[in-house]
Amino acid sequence: MTTYEAPVRDMKFLLQDVLQIGKYSNLPGFSDASEDVLDAILEEGAKIARDVVHPLNTVGDKQGCVRNDDASVTTPKGFNEAYQQLVEGGWMGLTSDPDYGGQGLPNIVGMAWSEMLSSANQAFAMYPGLTHGAYAALHHHGTEEQKKKYLPKMVSGEWGGTMNLTEPHCGTDLGMLKSKAVPVGDGSYKISGQKIWISGGEHDMAENIVHLVLARIEGAPEGVKGISLFVAPKYFVNDDGSLGDRNGVSCGGLEEKMGIHGNSTCVMNYDEATGWLVGEENKGLKAMFVMMNEARIGTGMQGLGQASVAYQNCVPFAKDRIQGRSLTGPKNPDGPADPIIVHPDVRRMLMNQKAFVEGGRAFTFWMSLYTDLLTKSPDEEVRQKASDYLALLTPVLKAFLTDRGFKSCIEAQQVLGGSGFTQEWGIEQFVRDCRISMIYEGTNGVQALDLVGRKLMAEGGRYWQTYFKEIDEFVAENEGDADMAPFVAGLKSAKAQLEEATGWLGENAMKNFDHAGAGSTDYLQMFGLTTLAYMWAMMVKVSLGKIADGDSDPLYANKIKTGRYYVDRVLPEIAAHFAKLKTGADPVMALEEEAF
Amino acid sequence: MTTYEAPVRDMKFLLQDVLQIGKYSNLPGFSDASEDVLDAILEEGAKIARDVVHPLNTVGDKQGCVRNDDASVTTPKGFNEAYQQLVEGGWMGLTSDPDYGGQGLPNIVGMAWSEMLSSANQAFAMYPGLTHGAYAALHHHGTEEQKKKYLPKMVSGEWGGTMNLTEPHCGTDLGMLKSKAVPVGDGSYKISGQKIWISGGEHDMAENIVHLVLARIEGAPEGVKGISLFVAPKYFVNDDGSLGDRNGVSCGGLEEKMGIHGNSTCVMNYDEATGWLVGEENKGLKAMFVMMNEARIGTGMQGLGQASVAYQNCVPFAKDRIQGRSLTGPKNPDGPADPIIVHPDVRRMLMNQKAFVEGGRAFTFWMSLYTDLLTKSPDEEVRQKASDYLALLTPVLKAFLTDRGFKSCIEAQQVLGGSGFTQEWGIEQFVRDCRISMIYEGTNGVQALDLVGRKLMAEGGRYWQTYFKEIDEFVAENEGDADMAPFVAGLKSAKAQLEEATGWLGENAMKNFDHAGAGSTDYLQMFGLTTLAYMWAMMVKVSLGKIADGDSDPLYANKIKTGRYYVDRVLPEIAAHFAKLKTGADPVMALEEEAF
Repeated sequence: MTTYEAPVRDMKFLLQDVLQIGKYSNLPGFSDASEDVLDAILEEGAKIARDVVHPLNTVGDKQGCVRNDDASVTTPKGFNEAYQQLVEGGWMGLTSDPDYGGQGLPNIVGMAWSEMLSSANQAFAMYPGLTHGAYAALHHHGTEEQKKKYLPKMVSGEWGGTMNLTEPHCGTDLGMLKSKAVPVGDGSYKISGQKIWISGGEHDMAENIVHLVLARIEGAPEGVKGISLFVAPKYFVNDDGSLGDRNGVSCGGLEEKMGIHGNSTCVMNYDEATGWLVGEENKGLKAMFVMMNEARIGTGMQGLGQASVAYQNCVPFAKDRIQGRSLTGPKNPDGPADPIIVHPDVRRMLMNQKAFVEGGRAFTFWMSLYTDLLTKSPDEEVRQKASDYLALLTPVLKAFLTDRGFKSCIEAQQVLGGSGFTQEWGIEQFVRDCRISMIYEGTNGVQALDLVGRKLMAEGGRYWQTYFKEIDEFVAENEGDADMAPFVAGLKSAKAQLEEATGWLGENAMKNFDHAGAGSTDYLQMFGLTTLAYMWAMMVKVSLGKIADGDSDPLYANKIKTGRYYVDRVLPEIAAHFAKLKTGADPVMALEEEAF
Repeated sequence: MTTYEAPVRDMKFLLQDVLQIGKYSNLPGFSDASEDVLDAILEEGAKIARDVVHPLNTVGDKQGCVRNDDASVTTPKGFNEAYQQLVEGGWMGLTSDPDYGGQGLPNIVGMAWSEMLSSANQAFAMYPGLTHGAYAALHHHGTEEQKKKYLPKMVSGEWGGTMNLTEPHCGTDLGMLKSKAVPVGDGSYKISGQKIWISGGEHDMAENIVHLVLARIEGAPEGVKGISLFVAPKYFVNDDGSLGDRNGVSCGGLEEKMGIHGNSTCVMNYDEATGWLVGEENKGLKAMFVMMNEARIGTGMQGLGQASVAYQNCVPFAKDRIQGRSLTGPKNPDGPADPIIVHPDVRRMLMNQKAFVEGGRAFTFWMSLYTDLLTKSPDEEVRQKASDYLALLTPVLKAFLTDRGFKSCIEAQQVLGGSGFTQEWGIEQFVRDCRISMIYEGTNGVQALDLVGRKLMAEGGRYWQTYFKEIDEFVAENEGDADMAPFVAGLKSAKAQLEEATGWLGENAMKNFDHAGAGSTDYLQMFGLTTLAYMWAMMVKVSLGKIADGDSDPLYANKIKTGRYYVDRVLPEIAAHFAKLKTGADPVMALEEEAF
């Protein structure tokens, strides 16, 4: 059986020591996030994650969701009770707008809670996760009337929310979507079509489900320029807020999947369902992107979250399981063998995970802070930088943390040997659940193309130039510090290679766009590796400062050692990615299609 | 739904063009493997794999095995019929000793068939696979009486065979095993204890199951020096060959696993079961190693086999699924979008798989040929080289092909996007089934330790010195050939780094054994990458020769392009592994145990 204990200490280190959110107490929401409040939220959240949500993780996997004959969906035993507990505790609207009943706390605080929830039970966490995405899109693009009608109950969690994009013949390429919206004349539309892979599309935990759905208004242009966003609730909402008739949208079936069985992945049939336009006609994709960018950061966090809980669950095995002797002499001489944690190759797998999880958490929290600054900072320059960084780094965060998060789960599983393959030990579920995060919200290949095809070139390269300059400044500031030397040297070399690769792409993509496509994944990996090197350098710097100040918490010395592992044992991969990228499109594209 | 078409053309290329097995027609078995016979076996085997065995792959996964109240185990629907078809067709004893009813064909021919079977249905293929391992151990170490009693029915497949090593508290470290054997006085022993994770330990496809089991004879020394090997059949065998009473060994339960659901993974309870010694007292581990080395090569092949079938099943999706447009202009201008195979990042995933599968197959077949030469060559020098190479490269083959085979399955799944995560498309099963091969028959970490801890140092380094010399000679012979230049340069550089790493390990392990342990996995990866570079260089050389001879089969040009991809886009990883290895044990071992 697995367990989950939220990494509260590590989260506090990031929030208070590294990102110093106390500095932002002049911003809306941050003043409410005093150290005491933060402590209370993290401690209480950790309890709920451990005692209420995590125990349902295996149950959810084994039972899955069931679609009944009346097209309703029953979630696994215990999900509903746990969900209501979160609603009652006010956990659903932690970061939502107080005007609609939310607590208005910073996103970065919400991120800490989301990670806990996702680590504890990814399939469960997706229900409130998607609801929050739908809330964000409606909050940003909805009319005042729509917001008043839908948001309060979505904020409380009494109602769920979904995003309906994919159709059987198109996912990535939404320009091909066929769902139709016919204006009725009263401001509403009749929406018809089929959507697939709709997470939380139908379930029994919320009174109502607010679907946001992309469709093409009759007569709209073809392609992405003719797509509009609509809100179509499962039950109509009367003017007094009570629920009315059932709308013409229903679950046509559930997907059988490799993992996240506790989440209902629905085929949604829209049969002249009534919907109302959200935002402008034909600008639905833009409106949906508010949701999508939030969802992409959330998906990256999921990769990290599964890696974190998988790591936690392989450590006790490594300490308890005795097998063989240390290469340097018995470490448990009174026992018949040593615990396997003495073996350097087991330690290597643990360190890989630890260096990834802590570095990845720093990356996620750092980005999350920028989502706060983007809307809350009074300083236009800060808002611009936040916007640039989020545009540039969201695809990196999504793909890098899910690719590596999955690898990290695989290593946790490997530590357990044969036990890792049996369902009884539970780690194999983390692997299966984690796998989806590399795929949904835009496959990792799509993220890589977004990075090289859009984000690098935007604003004449301003995004990456600003970022590289920040790293240069950090390097210049710390280069003279002997304790920082290996970390600064690693970061400097990584950034130099990344910058050279950026130049290579700029030069060669002009000649042949396929050079950019063929190098996109390697480039994204370089970007992620460099960013984690920056995160580790920041964390080490803070830790050195704490130690110099006489703080004896072992966390700081451990951060330095783990950061050193990252520089020595992970970062060298950047050169391999660079070497591959520089060979260009030819080796990738040489074979004729028939040869595959 | 998945399909499987055995890569007969590629297999023939390896057998006839690259490894030229016709050259060995003077060796036992090879004279029976004429080109016509070989063609017939491959073609007929491909049909059975496609039409009989593969259609049961999904069924086996969904139904799994069931343990009944009487401790019998029922295999999935259709398994028994398919199994009997293989027995009747003589497929079980393809490479077995003709003295016991086998066909005596070369192991390398058997390997081609095993790969087909494993690609078609890994869970199914494990039943005959384990039987053959048990056959090999008995054939090598059994008495004449034992061989006459058990082998003919194991060769035909009428009886199954198993290997019983692991106990709940020990797997890798067999020195701790507790199963006991008490001599009865008539030459037999009463064996008691519990064995776990016994593949095919109990099932309904064979009349009898011959268990090979490790146990400690009462009073034997502790540790590995007190372990003996026994044969304990499920049913006793009367002198006339008929089956007698049931022995005291039974299935106590089945493991629920992440994959290979069609294979019965049993807890086996030995309750004073009668067994007979195989080989010498207290030398059971050595006897079992005959089985284990064969099993390790077979396990590496499984990694390759799943990668091969996963690759096959993602290619049609990449060609059929239309989504987005090529970066270099529409390739399907009349359709609403281009097939995703036009996207360089999709092509990258396909090429990664293709370069791995074809290179890995060459490695497997090449090693398999050495298993033939080891016992069949009249030339002592050849036998010695075969023995050295098998000792050195078996751990590399096992770990490298399963690590990379799994990665390859993951990439196949990624090509399908969301469809890859749904059970309906079937690729996710290849991922789950493939995962076990990194774990069983000695985890990949154990393989790495075997390589650096035993195989490098054995015979004063003769194994690797012989191998490196062969590569040097190949490089020297082909360095002047302009067409071979990139392949020779890649191989030369890889081998130089590998040799330098070998020196680094030799030097530093003396100071601290943990340096070897901490670098073992990176070193093994370097070994594998170099070996595949050698395989690709050999295949390219043969292909260039064929083209020069006027052969217009496109396979040859495709081999050159795929080999080039390997050199440009895979081989650069070797430098990253080397860089990590050289940082030694310190970053890996720095953290205190409490810090995890």
